[in-house]
Amino acid sequence: MTFDLVLIGFGSVAQRFVALLEGQRAKIGREFGLSTRIVAVATRRHGRAYAARGIDGQALVECGKRGEPVGRYALERPTVDFIGDVARKGAAAEEGRLVVIETTTLDIAQGQPAIDHIRAALGCGAHAVTANKGPVAFAYDTLADAAKNSGRRFLFEGAVMDGIPIFNLVRETLPAVEIVGFRGVVNTTTNYILTAMEQGQAFDEALADMRIAGIAEADASLDVDGWDAAAKTAALANVLLGARLTPHGVEREGISAATGIRAVAARAAKRRVKLVATAAREDGAVTARVGPQELPEDDLLAGLEGQQNGIIFHTDLLGEMAVVQRGSGLTQTAYALLSDLIAIAKDVSGRPDVRRGRA
Amino acid sequence: MTFDLVLIGFGSVAQRFVALLEGQRAKIGREFGLSTRIVAVATRRHGRAYAARGIDGQALVECGKRGEPVGRYALERPTVDFIGDVARKGAAAEEGRLVVIETTTLDIAQGQPAIDHIRAALGCGAHAVTANKGPVAFAYDTLADAAKNSGRRFLFEGAVMDGIPIFNLVRETLPAVEIVGFRGVVNTTTNYILTAMEQGQAFDEALADMRIAGIAEADASLDVDGWDAAAKTAALANVLLGARLTPHGVEREGISAATGIRAVAARAAKRRVKLVATAAREDGAVTARVGPQELPEDDLLAGLEGQQNGIIFHTDLLGEMAVVQRGSGLTQTAYALLSDLIAIAKDVSGRPDVRRGRA
Repeated sequence: MTFDLVLIGFGSVAQRFVALLEGQRAKIGREFGLSTRIVAVATRRHGRAYAARGIDGQALVECGKRGEPVGRYALERPTVDFIGDVARKGAAAEEGRLVVIETTTLDIAQGQPAIDHIRAALGCGAHAVTANKGPVAFAYDTLADAAKNSGRRFLFEGAVMDGIPIFNLVRETLPAVEIVGFRGVVNTTTNYILTAMEQGQAFDEALADMRIAGIAEADASLDVDGWDAAAKTAALANVLLGARLTPHGVEREGISAATGIRAVAARAAKRRVKLVATAAREDGAVTARVGPQELPEDDLLAGLEGQQNGIIFHTDLLGEMAVVQRGSGLTQTAYALLSDLIAIAKDVSGRPDVRRGRA
Repeated sequence: MTFDLVLIGFGSVAQRFVALLEGQRAKIGREFGLSTRIVAVATRRHGRAYAARGIDGQALVECGKRGEPVGRYALERPTVDFIGDVARKGAAAEEGRLVVIETTTLDIAQGQPAIDHIRAALGCGAHAVTANKGPVAFAYDTLADAAKNSGRRFLFEGAVMDGIPIFNLVRETLPAVEIVGFRGVVNTTTNYILTAMEQGQAFDEALADMRIAGIAEADASLDVDGWDAAAKTAALANVLLGARLTPHGVEREGISAATGIRAVAARAAKRRVKLVATAAREDGAVTARVGPQELPEDDLLAGLEGQQNGIIFHTDLLGEMAVVQRGSGLTQTAYALLSDLIAIAKDVSGRPDVRRGRA
C-alpha cells in the first residue's frame, strides 16, 4: 500500500527522515508492504511544495541542505489550511493513506503551532506523526480523542527518547501491565554537561559541544532550565499514567554551573548528580518533578554517562524495568518517525487493534 | 473471543499463570476482548485432566499447591498424543482458539520433550506458548517454520528475561531495525551469587538463598555451569541474529567459588566480575559466548546487582539500547505467558501481521 506523506517542517530531523526512508525503501517494502511518496512539504522559511505524483526525496534533501526554497506553492495559505487543501486533493486521506509528519520545534509556552497542525491533520482524515514533544505534552487527551473520533492514529515515539521505543513498547508489548510511576534521565544536553564538568570541563564549553553536535535545543535554555525534560515528563505522565499535565504543571528546577560544581563534589563522595525526571500516581493524582538529584553511584540512573538517557518504569505486574538509550542523534529521531509510520501501515493494512482507544 | 488452554506442565510457573489469569480476567476481557478457559492439564507426576467446558482455575491451583493429582484422564497416552486428542475434541483448534501453554523444565541435552510438545501443538492446529528455553534454543527454525505452515503462533517471551519484553519488543517495536549483536547478564542465580560473594557471603550460602527463593534451576549446575545462560544466548541469537545454534554451540564457562574470589579482588580495583553472555554476527556467521568477564565499574552490565538482569542490543539504525529487569520472580514469568497469549488473541481477532513470517 502506498502512503502519501505531508511534511510539516523540513529541518534536520525531517531531512534525515527522508534520507532514512530512501535508504530503507527496499526493506520496508519487502517486510511491511509499505511504500511512500512525499506529496507536500511546508517549511517555515524555505517555501512550500506540492505534487500529487510525489516529490523526489533525494532532490528535496539536497535542497534542504543547501538552504534553498523547496517551492512557492500556496504560500499565502495558513499551514493548517495548506494541510486541509492537500488532504482534499486526492483520495489518500479518505482511504487512510495520508500521513502528516510534523517536525516543527518545541514551543514551551503552549506547544503551538504543532498542536494545530496535528488537529488539522486528524480533522481532515490524515494520520499524524510527530517528533515534537509539544502536542503530547500539552494536549494529549484532546488529540488522542480527535484521533479516535476520526479513526486515524496520532503517534509520537520520537517525543521522549528519540527512536528507542517507549510509547510503542508500553502499548504493544506490555498488555495488561499498569505503569504506576517512573524515574529517568531524559535530557541529553544537561546530562552531557554534568558528566563533562565532572571530568573538568567548564559549563559553557560543555554546552557549546552540544550546540555544535546539534543536540542542544535551538534555545538552549529549554535544556538547561529543565523545560525539555519537563515536556518529556508531561508527555510520559499523560500517556502512561493518565495524567492531564502540561510542562508547566511539572515541578521544575534546571542546572547551572553551580550544579556542575555540586556534581564534582558528589563524585568525590561516590555519589552522582543527575537531572532526574520523576512521576508517580498516588491516590488518583499524578505528581511530576524535574530537578537535580544526588544519587548513590550504584543507581542505574547514576551510571548514565554523557549522552545516555534512561527511564526506569515502576509497574504493577513486572516490578521495575528500565530502558536505556546509549546513543542519540538525528538518525535515531528520524527512525522514531519511521517506526510510527510502519505502525500505521500495519494498522491500516487491516489489523483491528482492539486497544486503539487507549492511544 | 474465548480461547481454550491446554496446560502441559503444572509446576510453580503454570500455577502462578493460572492465578494471574484469574486475577486479570476482568481487565483482559475489557481491554483485549479475551476470555479463556482451561480445557486440559497434563502434569508429570500428578495426573491429567480434561473438561470440554473448562476446569475451574482456582480449584486447579489449590490442587497443585497441595500436590494432589489433578485427575486420571488418559494417563496411558503419551503427552504428544494427549495434545492431539484434546485438539480433535472441539472446534477450538480449527478456529485458531486453542493454545498449548508449555511449562516443562529445561532439558539441556536436547530441549526435549518440550520440542515435541510444541511440534505436536502446532501440528494439530493449536498455538504454542512456552516459558521453557529449550524449544527456541534448540529448534527455533523448525518450530517457526511449523508455526508458519500451520498458520499458528509459536511464542516464548518467558524464555529469556521472564516477562520483560525482549522478543516482542524487537518484533513489535523495532521494525526495520537489524540487531547485529548483544551483551547481557541473563542468569539471575549466578549474578546473585557473585554479588553476594562480593559482600562477604560464601558461594554455597548464596546458592542456597537462590534455591530457597525458587529461582535456581532444579538442577543448580544448569545455572552455575552457565548452561541456562548458554540456552538463553542461543535463543536470542537464533531469533534476533538468525543463528542456528544450540546451547552446545555457545562457547561456555560457568562460575565457581574461585570466580567469586576473583570478583572480590576485582571490586577492590573498581572492576566487577559478571557472567556475561555475548553474541555477534560477523561475516555472515554468528559467534556466541558465555563466561565470566571483568568489567569496568561504569559498564552498564557491571551495575546489575543481585537479581537484576539486562541486555544491551547493538543495532544498525539505533546504536545501542539496553533493557534491564530489576526484579524477577514467578509473577514475571507467568506474565510472559499472559503477554504471549494476548498477542495471539490480538492476532486471531483479525490482524494480518505482515511480519508473521519473521517469527
